[in-house]
Amino acid sequence: MKNIRSIKTSTRICAIIGNPVAHSLSPAIHNAAFAALDLDFVYVAFRVEDVNQALAGMRALENFRGMSVTIPHKIEAMKHVDTIEDVDRHIGSINTVIKDNGKLQGLGTDGPGALKALMNAGVVINGKNVLMLGAGGAARAIAFTLASYGGPAAIEILDINETILQQLATDLTAGTDSVIKSNKMTDNTLAEAMAAADIVIHCTPIGMHPKEGISLVPVALFRPGQVIFDIVYTPLETKLLADARSKGLQVVSGVEMFIHQAVLQFEQFTGVDAPIEVMRRVVMEQLKL
Amino acid sequence: MKNIRSIKTSTRICAIIGNPVAHSLSPAIHNAAFAALDLDFVYVAFRVEDVNQALAGMRALENFRGMSVTIPHKIEAMKHVDTIEDVDRHIGSINTVIKDNGKLQGLGTDGPGALKALMNAGVVINGKNVLMLGAGGAARAIAFTLASYGGPAAIEILDINETILQQLATDLTAGTDSVIKSNKMTDNTLAEAMAAADIVIHCTPIGMHPKEGISLVPVALFRPGQVIFDIVYTPLETKLLADARSKGLQVVSGVEMFIHQAVLQFEQFTGVDAPIEVMRRVVMEQLKL
Repeated sequence: MKNIRSIKTSTRICAIIGNPVAHSLSPAIHNAAFAALDLDFVYVAFRVEDVNQALAGMRALENFRGMSVTIPHKIEAMKHVDTIEDVDRHIGSINTVIKDNGKLQGLGTDGPGALKALMNAGVVINGKNVLMLGAGGAARAIAFTLASYGGPAAIEILDINETILQQLATDLTAGTDSVIKSNKMTDNTLAEAMAAADIVIHCTPIGMHPKEGISLVPVALFRPGQVIFDIVYTPLETKLLADARSKGLQVVSGVEMFIHQAVLQFEQFTGVDAPIEVMRRVVMEQLKL
Repeated sequence: MKNIRSIKTSTRICAIIGNPVAHSLSPAIHNAAFAALDLDFVYVAFRVEDVNQALAGMRALENFRGMSVTIPHKIEAMKHVDTIEDVDRHIGSINTVIKDNGKLQGLGTDGPGALKALMNAGVVINGKNVLMLGAGGAARAIAFTLASYGGPAAIEILDINETILQQLATDLTAGTDSVIKSNKMTDNTLAEAMAAADIVIHCTPIGMHPKEGISLVPVALFRPGQVIFDIVYTPLETKLLADARSKGLQVVSGVEMFIHQAVLQFEQFTGVDAPIEVMRRVVMEQLKL
């Protein structure tokens, strides 16, 4: 196990920036992974108000290798990095900054983390109808990633907020080759969309602690063969997932997306395969506290 | 012993900035001290070219608590902090930055570290004639500290560079109440100054690794009762100190100044008494490698 006395002048630093960051699991996850592989890295947390100055500092401090970027800086951080992949530019937010030869590269691992969570669960996206519930930041990242790399037959998006819904549908249609449908969420549109969906991805805060015990989807709408993915992971099993499981459907927990976005960040930071079981164990331990 | 897995979102970060920093002992010293007292701190190293941007980053990254500042940034760093003590303003350089409530305070611990090394060795400065050999940055810090807090009868300074010599003498006369003398260093002025000196402080690089084995002071000039302090600490015993010891004089090693400047930084970072024996042990282990 790695003692802090092993930190040297060569040690590279990674950090989460956000506001707040006090409840972040990222230092525990990444330090456990660095320690497991005996890598010369350390991970800390910085509450940040001025993301521009924080990134300026990252540039100036040579051993500062990587950042995890969280709320409220995921959009603003894009403006202060040197390079961004097209898909991340479409998504409009990033959650990771890597410094290489003094240049800052911005990228997102939320969408790829969701894709990896689905793939690891054996879910086939190619040719399937995907229903996204919610059109906020997480839905944008997941929808663009699935539309770009997953090959779905169609993606339908429902939200009660028609402004962000139309924006996302327009951007997806312009930025990807996928068939995109969108509808204001009502009892009727939800029932119709559920009747067509193979994969349902829930991206709203409904069912999240402390408002657990509620679900957007009436149990009667589930159909055999559907896969239900809830990006909420507090509680570990939301009412949506419990309901779906009770009907015999395959469920994917948001905790898998959370783990995989961290795994992808870790691999960007270090260039080596992440010790995923170590990271999963830390997440589970921390979430059960 | 403190594992890096114990790093949390509350952990405060300290760092050395300089260029180069690869050979700095500071991470080893401070992390050992944090671990010994089980403090929620970690210390890293950043090579830095743009000290202004590095300090901007320190401001923006909330848990960034303290910096050790080393060559070549000790002068430039002063321009980018919010508050500086008068004595440090006179010295014209700082080696420490502390962030408190978002404000950066610059201060120097080199001079106080030298004063503490002398005091801990039982050396009385009050009423004594102090001879400084060299008028560079370290000599400035030590001379101002001794003149401000030591109460010497007089401080005489010798250097071969008359420009920095006159500047230091002028600044000391203007900024302190001490009697200040200065002379271009020659065989004659050195002999005369040694004849009057009670305490000799060597602040030039002569005798430092890899040019060890030479000394500025001919053995014949030593007088009984003199104290010889060499701020060079590689090698641990310079030829100057070995010569002085062979004549039965009290000697003070630069390693004590180095340890005490780190002790004073640690106490600024943490607000608690430093575990000095832990820090001394790390310095000795590292210097003997």
